[in-house]
Amino acid sequence: MALPDDDDVPLILTDDNAGRNREEIPNENGGGYDVISAEAVVTPDVRDYRPSYGSLKQVWEMNYQEAAIYLQEGENNDKFFTHPKDQKALAAYLFVHNHTFYVMELISGLLLLILSLSEAPAVPSLRLDIYIHATLELLALLTVVFELGMKMRWLGFQTFIRHKRTMLKSTVLFVQFIEVIVVLIRQTSHARVTRALRPIFLVDCRYCGAVRRNLRQIFQSLPPFIDILSLLLFFMVIFAILGFYLFSANPLDPYFSTPEDSLVSLFVLLTTANFPDVMMPAYSKNSWTCVFFIVYLSIELYFIMNLLLAVVFDTFNDVEKKKFKSLLLHKRLAMEHAFRLLVSKRKPNGISFKQFDGLMRFYYPRMNARDKYLTFKALKKRNTELLGVEDFYNFYEVTGLKWKAKRSGDYWFYDLPHTPFLIFKGINILVKSKAFQYAMYVVITVNGIWILAETLMIKDGAIFLKIVPWSYIVFLTIYGVEMLLKITGLGPSEYFTSGWNLFDFLVTIFAFVGIVVLAFDMEPFYFIVILRPLQLLRLFKIKRRYRDVLDTMFELLPRMASLGLTLLIFYYSFAIVGMEFFGDVLYRNCCNNSMVADSYRWINRTVGDRTVIQGYYSLNNFNNILNSFVTLFELTVVNNWYIIMEGVVSQTSNWSRIYFMTFYIVTMVVLTIIVAFILDAFLFRMNYSRKNKGEEDENGIVFEIEVDKVEIDRLIEFNKQNGSSSSEVAGLFKLSSRMANNGQLKMVFIGRRLRTKSDLSIKMYEEEIQEWFEEYTRTNQMQHDQPLECILNSSTLLPSAELRQRSQTIT
Amino acid sequence: MALPDDDDVPLILTDDNAGRNREEIPNENGGGYDVISAEAVVTPDVRDYRPSYGSLKQVWEMNYQEAAIYLQEGENNDKFFTHPKDQKALAAYLFVHNHTFYVMELISGLLLLILSLSEAPAVPSLRLDIYIHATLELLALLTVVFELGMKMRWLGFQTFIRHKRTMLKSTVLFVQFIEVIVVLIRQTSHARVTRALRPIFLVDCRYCGAVRRNLRQIFQSLPPFIDILSLLLFFMVIFAILGFYLFSANPLDPYFSTPEDSLVSLFVLLTTANFPDVMMPAYSKNSWTCVFFIVYLSIELYFIMNLLLAVVFDTFNDVEKKKFKSLLLHKRLAMEHAFRLLVSKRKPNGISFKQFDGLMRFYYPRMNARDKYLTFKALKKRNTELLGVEDFYNFYEVTGLKWKAKRSGDYWFYDLPHTPFLIFKGINILVKSKAFQYAMYVVITVNGIWILAETLMIKDGAIFLKIVPWSYIVFLTIYGVEMLLKITGLGPSEYFTSGWNLFDFLVTIFAFVGIVVLAFDMEPFYFIVILRPLQLLRLFKIKRRYRDVLDTMFELLPRMASLGLTLLIFYYSFAIVGMEFFGDVLYRNCCNNSMVADSYRWINRTVGDRTVIQGYYSLNNFNNILNSFVTLFELTVVNNWYIIMEGVVSQTSNWSRIYFMTFYIVTMVVLTIIVAFILDAFLFRMNYSRKNKGEEDENGIVFEIEVDKVEIDRLIEFNKQNGSSSSEVAGLFKLSSRMANNGQLKMVFIGRRLRTKSDLSIKMYEEEIQEWFEEYTRTNQMQHDQPLECILNSSTLLPSAELRQRSQTIT
Repeated sequence: MALPDDDDVPLILTDDNAGRNREEIPNENGGGYDVISAEAVVTPDVRDYRPSYGSLKQVWEMNYQEAAIYLQEGENNDKFFTHPKDQKALAAYLFVHNHTFYVMELISGLLLLILSLSEAPAVPSLRLDIYIHATLELLALLTVVFELGMKMRWLGFQTFIRHKRTMLKSTVLFVQFIEVIVVLIRQTSHARVTRALRPIFLVDCRYCGAVRRNLRQIFQSLPPFIDILSLLLFFMVIFAILGFYLFSANPLDPYFSTPEDSLVSLFVLLTTANFPDVMMPAYSKNSWTCVFFIVYLSIELYFIMNLLLAVVFDTFNDVEKKKFKSLLLHKRLAMEHAFRLLVSKRKPNGISFKQFDGLMRFYYPRMNARDKYLTFKALKKRNTELLGVEDFYNFYEVTGLKWKAKRSGDYWFYDLPHTPFLIFKGINILVKSKAFQYAMYVVITVNGIWILAETLMIKDGAIFLKIVPWSYIVFLTIYGVEMLLKITGLGPSEYFTSGWNLFDFLVTIFAFVGIVVLAFDMEPFYFIVILRPLQLLRLFKIKRRYRDVLDTMFELLPRMASLGLTLLIFYYSFAIVGMEFFGDVLYRNCCNNSMVADSYRWINRTVGDRTVIQGYYSLNNFNNILNSFVTLFELTVVNNWYIIMEGVVSQTSNWSRIYFMTFYIVTMVVLTIIVAFILDAFLFRMNYSRKNKGEEDENGIVFEIEVDKVEIDRLIEFNKQNGSSSSEVAGLFKLSSRMANNGQLKMVFIGRRLRTKSDLSIKMYEEEIQEWFEEYTRTNQMQHDQPLECILNSSTLLPSAELRQRSQTIT
Repeated sequence: MALPDDDDVPLILTDDNAGRNREEIPNENGGGYDVISAEAVVTPDVRDYRPSYGSLKQVWEMNYQEAAIYLQEGENNDKFFTHPKDQKALAAYLFVHNHTFYVMELISGLLLLILSLSEAPAVPSLRLDIYIHATLELLALLTVVFELGMKMRWLGFQTFIRHKRTMLKSTVLFVQFIEVIVVLIRQTSHARVTRALRPIFLVDCRYCGAVRRNLRQIFQSLPPFIDILSLLLFFMVIFAILGFYLFSANPLDPYFSTPEDSLVSLFVLLTTANFPDVMMPAYSKNSWTCVFFIVYLSIELYFIMNLLLAVVFDTFNDVEKKKFKSLLLHKRLAMEHAFRLLVSKRKPNGISFKQFDGLMRFYYPRMNARDKYLTFKALKKRNTELLGVEDFYNFYEVTGLKWKAKRSGDYWFYDLPHTPFLIFKGINILVKSKAFQYAMYVVITVNGIWILAETLMIKDGAIFLKIVPWSYIVFLTIYGVEMLLKITGLGPSEYFTSGWNLFDFLVTIFAFVGIVVLAFDMEPFYFIVILRPLQLLRLFKIKRRYRDVLDTMFELLPRMASLGLTLLIFYYSFAIVGMEFFGDVLYRNCCNNSMVADSYRWINRTVGDRTVIQGYYSLNNFNNILNSFVTLFELTVVNNWYIIMEGVVSQTSNWSRIYFMTFYIVTMVVLTIIVAFILDAFLFRMNYSRKNKGEEDENGIVFEIEVDKVEIDRLIEFNKQNGSSSSEVAGLFKLSSRMANNGQLKMVFIGRRLRTKSDLSIKMYEEEIQEWFEEYTRTNQMQHDQPLECILNSSTLLPSAELRQRSQTIT
């Protein structure tokens, strides 16, 4: 591999270089990317003429950094119009795109949310003085102000006010600011419904990208959802009128006495929560009235509600595909931008290793010299020195790989002396054997039956024995030994990469904690002892379908968590509104005038031979944020939600129903999206495995790269010249000398990473992707008819880029 | 078109011809299809030698009939091993495949089901004496015996006992027979749980094919369903053990006091029916216990239940596609069988019109001569005399077409004199104009607001005015006029083919009935008056998505109805079992010892200023079949189902829970299938319309065929020769003379039919279908390597056919 000439000149000078000189060197094209001729830099007099360009090396560094930024923007799906425009913006950009900054954002966002635990209707044990929580809030808000200031520096005022989310955030920030100052001055909390808007500070965090995506998806699914919802409501109104005419004559029927009652009853009936009670008064008078309710439920619940799911699912599918397409094209564009910045004027068709190395120093600073070289080789498909644009298109697929030298057998104990090697090898074989697996299944089954029998034998209430039962110790010992054998046999790194093993490990560890708990008699942690039966879940590994299902489950977890978080954000807003309007409204024996008075009347009753308490519903209140969350969860589950609604209504006004009905519709939207998501993910996986039947791909993405000693030596030379850190060079030396010692001329490295949804999608939509790319280059070519530059100038894909950069054809 | 020689000889002689002669002419190949050489029939001496072959005409007739039977079997998806084997079987086959017979089957099946209205725990008003209903049952059973006898004659004993469904039916029949005789002898009804098996007589009916298909689909979806269900139950058991350990120490918590209670509580919680009550005792002691319930519901209800839907939906999709594939190949095979029977020895590569006419006389006896000819021309793609096998493959697509002469404008009033023509033409233009449509929308909107306002103005209970309100008359007049204009403008046939118009028509007619009801003061029909608001549904026509949704709804209706019927069949069985075990168990103030006593305690209460009755649940009982159905519907809706379950349990034993839980699981299966079906149908349609964007295909399938006068005259000649009925010939004469009068040399006919699901599927799976056919011919060719014969001999597709027929290569 030849190292390129040091004084080769970049094809494009980045904006930053140009920007810095904008005032000094009049540029008739109005700034932006500036292409200088090779001579202009190479000949000394030109260098003198443009001294602030700095050395060629500095010019390259700038290009590397900008290319890295483009690639990051591509990866994070950041729009290019937020690309830093000048040196000042770049500094702000680097400050803002930084884990410290992200964490600060997250903490201030979380703090603002958590504060509601301690504010006015506070959770008793967490109550804080007003000046404390108001000061904390003020601090958090000031942090947000600072963050927004930095963002404005980076984006520039124009872009900043064009960015809707940021503007919304600023408005909310302003309102919150005024309110907190009012609170500090008056020293009392007033009704602050605007707190319901606080989640925006969390949602805007870098780390909450998934939540933002979910919200976007929910908003995109809304139009068809609303259409079907209005069909639903239309039928509801018609049936309400019908029901009113049919049943209001019956004085014993409280559900249809007015048109409003009738509508509310049917709304609740849609959720089935008041069925069959709502039917009973009419039914007891005339049996045929049941037809009304059966028809209503068949149309609304069994037909339109399912249609709602179908429509949302259809939109969801469509949106997912479109999102994937735009992300794919966005990434490609980012790679093309980066590519243009990395090629030199002399060799405009490919990136040399030197430039790649420069890029990676910015893009992935912690990657070591060896891995950079392996990544470069993995990208390069043809046997040339340079990386063509086609090669470079695989950038994102290859940079995530973890590299490891390939060894026969691939055991972790490979480097150990002979005797321990043999022992570990034996354990390895044992652990991987079918017999061992099935033996463990038998143990687990026996354990399961044992637990069941034990539980059934306890007759009068559960009695926790204060001694550790021997069966528990026996089974736990077996599990512990199994765990140890597996860890030693497979090596910790292999052991913990499997979700199943991780699960086994956690359950076993929990069980150990359980034994300690039992032995030391710590009451509140007893429940850990009871997690034992979870071990039984391992039995499901036996059948293929369960493995599929549970694997899908593991894969879905992150996305499910983000959907859960999205739901929690809605909960938060509703909880705040609920607290402000319905706080302390529900209490024991309230609501005596309502239909649901019984549920709130606290009385002891004797049923058969035991005493039961009735009237717990006053516990489902909005007295503080935690109570509100539980109440909202109960409303989400829907059953008996009208008892809570009617309780509140009887204590406040009929208008309160709007709150509950809105909440029902919002959760319906979110839950439908969740169902659509599970359906989509599962069907996608099933189709995928049907399409790739036979192909074994449980190992994720694997690359193999062969490197010979000459290459390594040249790499050492390159790193020395390039001024890499001594530890890097030392690492390469070690590798080289080991190869020399072993007499190896060649060495194979394996790069691995887990398969992502994007990989699966690429495989699933293979044919369509080809079409998309063709269409993409076609639209670009139609506009400019210049193979590469056109993409950089493409006004459809990169509107502001066009203003900022000019590209020139290579002479 | 040349008519073929009358004495051309069929390539294959049907089994029937061969069968009839089996004893007379020893056949060394052991019966079955017999190919005779052309000379064998044509030369007189051979005719003398085989006198019982009859004339060549008779031989052809036999072939026509057998081909028609094959085509019917293909259409109805009847397996070929039930194909009639000889003359006796053929007679039985024709007897059994007959609408009179089908109706008899249906009536006896329905009668047996309906009898349970009058048997032992009878609906009071329908109670019959024991000897009456037992005699009726005996009669119905005897009819079934007769039907089975006929079937046995047709199928032969061997096939008959191999047919599982028929064997099951016979067994049930036998048991029912004995039981009814016991009832007649003892003159009292004993506990007849076996009545739960009665639906099999209905399901086996010809007309209930859709129900059978649904049942098959449900059974096919069962294995994955059961897998996920056991995962669900596994978590339930684990949480039950956990809940028991955690909460049984609380004496106020009745839900977890024993392991069994714990399991039942969690089963009910899965349906959410006892939430949040089940949580309350624990929650009031320690707020953090809510985590247990939230985790349980999140895993079971929000994750695994949705997974269940995903798995069922996936299987459903798969099964639908496989079913479509097998049906398609089955039809193709049937067409190939028929084709072989219709070609003659002289022209073995195509069917002449004469043969096609012969076939259609059996396949579609009511088709007239003109339509037969048009169908033949529509099938024939190339410009030859004969119909090749490739042409014949479109048989099913073309035979359903309705033919009509094409006229400019295509108005129904085309034949009228000039003045009425102009009037109708004017109405037609008016009715089709946008202005008219939107004017109607405005009227409907005003009507809707009017109704709403009217309803809201009624304050104290609904008061039915005994006079007809003027607004009602005004609006109804407008609707009536619109309806009449449309019918006259578009013509009745065009008007009623649109589902929307049909809907308008029905609603308007109902409204007229309503006016009559109001005018004549007939109390029980008041509800018709209230259907008026349904007219508002027409407003939804405005938006494209609603049209799609509602069109899909109309298309789904037949299938939905069959799914509903399937559900009813399960209801019936459960209702019978419920009546036998839990009849008269629930009554007012029963169940005083149970947790749900309040729901059965009949008391008057005063809530606010009105009296309400409480304790209606005793109405949800199993006292007769109608009550049972309502109760089962309530169980299907799930809400508060445990009140019914616990009521029954407190009066009988804990084992009764099995009945309710089984019912829950069964309805869950059926409902999941229904959801999967709606999802599938809707997504299919959406994908279809996305795939065929732009292509306008609202007119269904359309064929255009041009016929010239010479052809018609030749057709008349042919029909005369062929001995067709004089009315047929007269019809053709009329056509010919009209053409002569108008000086037309050519005439164009249009054939139309509605698009079916099968047409859509063919378009959707276009590419895959090609593969299937290729694979199908490949497997067949691999076995024999003979292009056509092979298919007839193919042992994989037609196991018994091989034994029965030999084919010979054409020399």
